[in-house]
Amino acid sequence: MHGLHLIAELYACRGDQRLFDDAAILRELCIDACREPGLTPLGDLFHQFGDRRSGDHRQAGGVTGAVVLAESHLAVHTWPETKGVTLDLYVCNFSQDNRVAARQVSARLIAAFAPTRLIEREIERGTPMLAAATSAGD
Amino acid sequence: MHGLHLIAELYACRGDQRLFDDAAILRELCIDACREPGLTPLGDLFHQFGDRRSGDHRQAGGVTGAVVLAESHLAVHTWPETKGVTLDLYVCNFSQDNRVAARQVSARLIAAFAPTRLIEREIERGTPMLAAATSAGD
Repeated sequence: MHGLHLIAELYACRGDQRLFDDAAILRELCIDACREPGLTPLGDLFHQFGDRRSGDHRQAGGVTGAVVLAESHLAVHTWPETKGVTLDLYVCNFSQDNRVAARQVSARLIAAFAPTRLIEREIERGTPMLAAATSAGD
Repeated sequence: MHGLHLIAELYACRGDQRLFDDAAILRELCIDACREPGLTPLGDLFHQFGDRRSGDHRQAGGVTGAVVLAESHLAVHTWPETKGVTLDLYVCNFSQDNRVAARQVSARLIAAFAPTRLIEREIERGTPMLAAATSAGD
């Protein structure tokens, strides 16, 4: 369970408009960005909002997607109306330390979106120290 | 983009063993937990490790899954060998405040896994204050 979770919020992006409202284009970027440093996509699901046939309530469109990785997951949500994006990349270190790979994926995605404002946070997960800090019973 | 991200790590769980190594059972719980307080699953992907046909490196098994929601996403990863689980539930407040629903989903999943030790964190995302705190250019 031990691993690194990278969280980012991107604002007022200047990247390719298609990344915000074309699920196929965003999917291709995400899968390729994960594979490049050696992460392993096992499957993915990208949903395009604003398709009248599906009765989406999010009329302004956007894409929401997830890539399930052997190392954990990537999740991306876009808001074309404000050129905003949220990114989540969680990698566990089950068979090797994947922190460097995770930072490479995140950096590539952020570079593609080209945010004017950017909030990034790194969260260490599953540490033994944290595990001992709180008990829900026992 | 404004919303709430609930992160949890569950250790030494005493819940039903099938939740750790049966993707169909875990999927059913996750989808049902999301629907109960009114969240909207748009699709999902659950992968079962330890299937020799797929050449998985994670021999000890486990399930990794994601539910793409109209409100953002749920991600779950299990480690049967230590009875460990990580949960991620991010809900944006696009058309309504989904924070109460998110906490209900998280509470139901945690109750099902029944951890002996539990770490929970709540992360507010996409706040205007945070947006102004860091600039990546401009």
